[in-house]
Amino acid sequence: MLSAGVVGGTGYTGVELLRLLVMHPEVELTCVTSRSEAGNKVADMFPNLREHTDIEFTEPDEKSLGNCDIVFFATPNGTAMTMVPALLEQGARIIDLAADFRLKDEAEWEQWYGIKHACSDVLADAVYGLPELNRDAVKGAKVVANPGCYPTAVTLGFLPLIEHDLIEDQHLVADAKSGVSGAGRGASVATLLCEASESFKPYAVDGHRHLPEIRQTLSSAAGHDVGLTFVPHLLPMIRGIEASLYAVLKAGDVDLHALFCARYESEPFVDVLPAGTMPETRTVRGVNMCRLSVFQPQGGDTVVVSSVIDNLVKGAAGQAVQNMNIMFGLAEETGLSNVALLP
Amino acid sequence: MLSAGVVGGTGYTGVELLRLLVMHPEVELTCVTSRSEAGNKVADMFPNLREHTDIEFTEPDEKSLGNCDIVFFATPNGTAMTMVPALLEQGARIIDLAADFRLKDEAEWEQWYGIKHACSDVLADAVYGLPELNRDAVKGAKVVANPGCYPTAVTLGFLPLIEHDLIEDQHLVADAKSGVSGAGRGASVATLLCEASESFKPYAVDGHRHLPEIRQTLSSAAGHDVGLTFVPHLLPMIRGIEASLYAVLKAGDVDLHALFCARYESEPFVDVLPAGTMPETRTVRGVNMCRLSVFQPQGGDTVVVSSVIDNLVKGAAGQAVQNMNIMFGLAEETGLSNVALLP
Amino acid sequence: MLSAGVVGGTGYTGVELLRLLVMHPEVELTCVTSRSEAGNKVADMFPNLREHTDIEFTEPDEKSLGNCDIVFFATPNGTAMTMVPALLEQGARIIDLAADFRLKDEAEWEQWYGIKHACSDVLADAVYGLPELNRDAVKGAKVVANPGCYPTAVTLGFLPLIEHDLIEDQHLVADAKSGVSGAGRGASVATLLCEASESFKPYAVDGHRHLPEIRQTLSSAAGHDVGLTFVPHLLPMIRGIEASLYAVLKAGDVDLHALFCARYESEPFVDVLPAGTMPETRTVRGVNMCRLSVFQPQGGDTVVVSSVIDNLVKGAAGQAVQNMNIMFGLAEETGLSNVALLP
Amino acid sequence: MLSAGVVGGTGYTGVELLRLLVMHPEVELTCVTSRSEAGNKVADMFPNLREHTDIEFTEPDEKSLGNCDIVFFATPNGTAMTMVPALLEQGARIIDLAADFRLKDEAEWEQWYGIKHACSDVLADAVYGLPELNRDAVKGAKVVANPGCYPTAVTLGFLPLIEHDLIEDQHLVADAKSGVSGAGRGASVATLLCEASESFKPYAVDGHRHLPEIRQTLSSAAGHDVGLTFVPHLLPMIRGIEASLYAVLKAGDVDLHALFCARYESEPFVDVLPAGTMPETRTVRGVNMCRLSVFQPQGGDTVVVSSVIDNLVKGAAGQAVQNMNIMFGLAEETGLSNVALLP
Repeated sequence: MLSAGVVGGTGYTGVELLRLLVMHPEVELTCVTSRSEAGNKVADMFPNLREHTDIEFTEPDEKSLGNCDIVFFATPNGTAMTMVPALLEQGARIIDLAADFRLKDEAEWEQWYGIKHACSDVLADAVYGLPELNRDAVKGAKVVANPGCYPTAVTLGFLPLIEHDLIEDQHLVADAKSGVSGAGRGASVATLLCEASESFKPYAVDGHRHLPEIRQTLSSAAGHDVGLTFVPHLLPMIRGIEASLYAVLKAGDVDLHALFCARYESEPFVDVLPAGTMPETRTVRGVNMCRLSVFQPQGGDTVVVSSVIDNLVKGAAGQAVQNMNIMFGLAEETGLSNVALLP
Repeated sequence: MLSAGVVGGTGYTGVELLRLLVMHPEVELTCVTSRSEAGNKVADMFPNLREHTDIEFTEPDEKSLGNCDIVFFATPNGTAMTMVPALLEQGARIIDLAADFRLKDEAEWEQWYGIKHACSDVLADAVYGLPELNRDAVKGAKVVANPGCYPTAVTLGFLPLIEHDLIEDQHLVADAKSGVSGAGRGASVATLLCEASESFKPYAVDGHRHLPEIRQTLSSAAGHDVGLTFVPHLLPMIRGIEASLYAVLKAGDVDLHALFCARYESEPFVDVLPAGTMPETRTVRGVNMCRLSVFQPQGGDTVVVSSVIDNLVKGAAGQAVQNMNIMFGLAEETGLSNVALLP
Repeated sequence: MLSAGVVGGTGYTGVELLRLLVMHPEVELTCVTSRSEAGNKVADMFPNLREHTDIEFTEPDEKSLGNCDIVFFATPNGTAMTMVPALLEQGARIIDLAADFRLKDEAEWEQWYGIKHACSDVLADAVYGLPELNRDAVKGAKVVANPGCYPTAVTLGFLPLIEHDLIEDQHLVADAKSGVSGAGRGASVATLLCEASESFKPYAVDGHRHLPEIRQTLSSAAGHDVGLTFVPHLLPMIRGIEASLYAVLKAGDVDLHALFCARYESEPFVDVLPAGTMPETRTVRGVNMCRLSVFQPQGGDTVVVSSVIDNLVKGAAGQAVQNMNIMFGLAEETGLSNVALLP
Repeated sequence: MLSAGVVGGTGYTGVELLRLLVMHPEVELTCVTSRSEAGNKVADMFPNLREHTDIEFTEPDEKSLGNCDIVFFATPNGTAMTMVPALLEQGARIIDLAADFRLKDEAEWEQWYGIKHACSDVLADAVYGLPELNRDAVKGAKVVANPGCYPTAVTLGFLPLIEHDLIEDQHLVADAKSGVSGAGRGASVATLLCEASESFKPYAVDGHRHLPEIRQTLSSAAGHDVGLTFVPHLLPMIRGIEASLYAVLKAGDVDLHALFCARYESEPFVDVLPAGTMPETRTVRGVNMCRLSVFQPQGGDTVVVSSVIDNLVKGAAGQAVQNMNIMFGLAEETGLSNVALLP
């Protein structure tokens, strides 16, 4: 059994992680921290956990956290980096579900996140936890930077095309749409039901923090800088991301569907749909899966990929558990084999 | 391992049952029938099952169904009763998720369902599968009539009050609200997103088929006929039933919360919430649980109970699996211990 | 042309009032106040108003407000009562969309609202603005207390029965459901899309502030105190209230539908539906209308009324405009004859 | 007063047209036809019209329709073309809200719509009713082909860029998303609330009928064939289209916002938002307006336009009324100046 700690268990990423961890057969949840909720039962805040755990929120405490085999940070950006060095010293391994260790270029990180990075050396050693790309590195990692939700959906969709150098990569377009849970559980007018339901809008068109993250991974896969336009949109629903990806093909005679099938054949959490089938976000609701389709509309020279995930699972907590499984030598599917809720 | 067959696997009750059965550790799904879909893969229709089963729909066939240990009917009302006698002869046991065996009074059944009953003798022997009331009878049953969704929520809410003769039972009121999945997966204008979302309405105020079913159970528990007004409403959402129940108390000095706690103390799938807490349907989404609260507003002589279930789980497929577990001597929670998806 | 001022134009009641006032042919909007938004264009906050007004939010200022013919308060409870006396002195007439002048019993008001009332004398003279009950008094009123949303739906539904003394009135039940806009536009976790959509729950079962308001009106109509259980619920949608009302009939041989038709025959904003038809909230979305149906299920002795309104229109801003029309001798439908948006 | 007939008043486009026509001060609705509903009151099917019209559905009858000044077809594709020639002979003018007269190339029309065109000569004379492009031609038109919903949003977004030859036009991308009402009011599984809510998906990626329509207009504006990838998606909501448009700029130093403002300065129903502001579909709910923003993310060489409309208003019924106003010399805003419902 692994002992696991969760720092920041009051947000949507946190409660989703708790849902997965209490069902995980190889994990014992040893602490869940929250300054504001210390002393309260986790299941009083999240009644879906009532039959599953009696654990209480506690104040974040380096000692108890450091004694865990694995510590998850489900905190706002900028928190993990202040606590991680001390926990590493005690021997804990870390998965940060926030953004503190996602960008390799420290200057770029500081520019996009607007604060100084607190531990450059840890940043340098952290592994970007997209298993489909970095599985081996994750195995030995002390610190895993769990990818962002949009980057997971977009990167998995572009990757086979980039790796085979099949597309003009200076004008990639990623038109992405996310359910409102991606915005977190903080009180805010913009994510009220009355503001966000029965409506749809783009946001952060001028530049979203996931842009440099996607660009970093795709550029690394391409071997040179790629050009990407990334436009996120807010969907009037709770969970789910769909990314529609557009690029101009360099050559028109490749069997793209076969290429995608081959690339992800042994991946337990990427599902290339039968040719002609379109993905729906609801087919991945609550599960750690990315479903993908690739199209060449009207037989033209533009390729379209549609990629769907549950932003809270493959886009956050599920991928974190997948990374934990890899780090500790468990079967990768352990605790992640539920069926999506449909309808 | 139990071999299980599902007749009628293309509706919402059917797909929910398949979701639970493919995750159940003691069940092997041996056939799923559908006349219209025979030959097609189940997972092509319901992509959430893609990683979990390769089974194809088959024509309903008495021979293969009769060889199953347990056959579930997730069919329209009136179908099961025509097939059940032949299957019983082959030794299969039956759980009907439709209404064919729910009303003991055959004449009343025929009046509410508008057709002649096809097998009176089976009806007489069938057990009404509300485990919290009939657990022992379910154990030995050949045929279990799985309760309706509204009756499950309403009956569990009134039961402690009726059993202790605490309320005037000639003017019971049950104001119930259901998500749209209760109306099934058939194409119809009334359940289109554009008709049913962003709106709310009562329906069948003059008489819903679940009225005699609830009345039968409550009258049996009371030892005499009760009077009930039951008004169902359609909620603009997919899953979930909430029933608000109203009755006048005969005596005002009973600790109702303690009474409910005692009644359901050993029930794995009924959760009496802490006093003062109100149930929300989302806390039971996807799980086999009924959460209940009881109130005496303003200290007056009216009792209010609020009861929530997922209409497709504790109100249908989950309760069916619970009944199967009881019938075959499995631990009652087997395959039913998931955590509800929140948010 | 009437000059109109709106105090507190940043909430949902406020923006709905602005929508109605900018379309009203006899109104000139002269000021819209908001401390936090002073200096900003109203249409920058609410882009639906972009083509309709250039007005800016201003600091609340007694002088300019007092010069208006009519001042609407769309403020939190407790604000209007501190400003109204000064405005009355300058000759302005007042419609308060909050609760400051709704309860005639000052002690009861203070108990439910938890603060001391600031102007008892104004409270004594204020008219409860339910036109279907108090039209004549509204005509001459200096201060109109615009009814709450639930009270409007519930009162109009019970009124014909109470006025004709047809029901046992000590155990009235009102099971009411409201869209989330009833909770206002303040940032709060409970009304986030991810908390309130795809779920349903009762709230304030022990006592909601609209309970004494409904009880006051019904008791007055009955000529004695009535007993009422009022349970509000939160619907996963933006707009709309449905109230299902239950009572035991004293005599069973009254044509209830005819009674309701007669009571509301000349009311422009109450629509008794054809017998057997059930109301839906979407048929009143965006319009100042209450639609009602009355039932006697199974021919029994319980009467069920279902009443629907748009909580922001007949339940707030629309009723306020209706009251203004009455106060100033305009045709009651002026500016209120739009068609509901369906679907 | 114009006498107006509506053929096919039972779908969403139909009821929206009725909503606008009964509020239009210069229109008398003289007949609404429906084979299946003949003899029934329109307001019995659509209760939002209860206070506004007593008209009944009638069998389609060429004589009465031909006597109208204007006949709207809100019918399935392929219906209008069989009736229009006879109506034209009687002197009626026609606005077809379906696709029968949208494509100038008859062979292309027949290929995409799968049937033979019934009146080539009428097709040749019909005017594509996008007022922002063809206002003068609409004035004198006998037959107006009312544009599709997606084409309206996409074309208005690309038009200023194409007209000024600012973009590489062989690889245009239009990623469009529509509320479910765009799929119509027919009973179908795919548009049930339980299938389409809480989910998101692309559809018709290989080729949607609106593709040739958009291409025709943009190619005509460009003076040569443009290349376009158009991917529609289904939004979990009732009304609204958002189109995100992507193209590579030929030159980077144009003030795109100023260009859009100038192009649409005198258009009553196109609103270019302040620079940096993002459109939301809810700000156009129920109104005849297209709101647009243009971006050059990160100062790069890709232009992004976001364009929103209500698919049933500016994308269908509202644009039809706008065209009628133009055809009959009325002020273009007549009957179209409502405020959008927000929230």
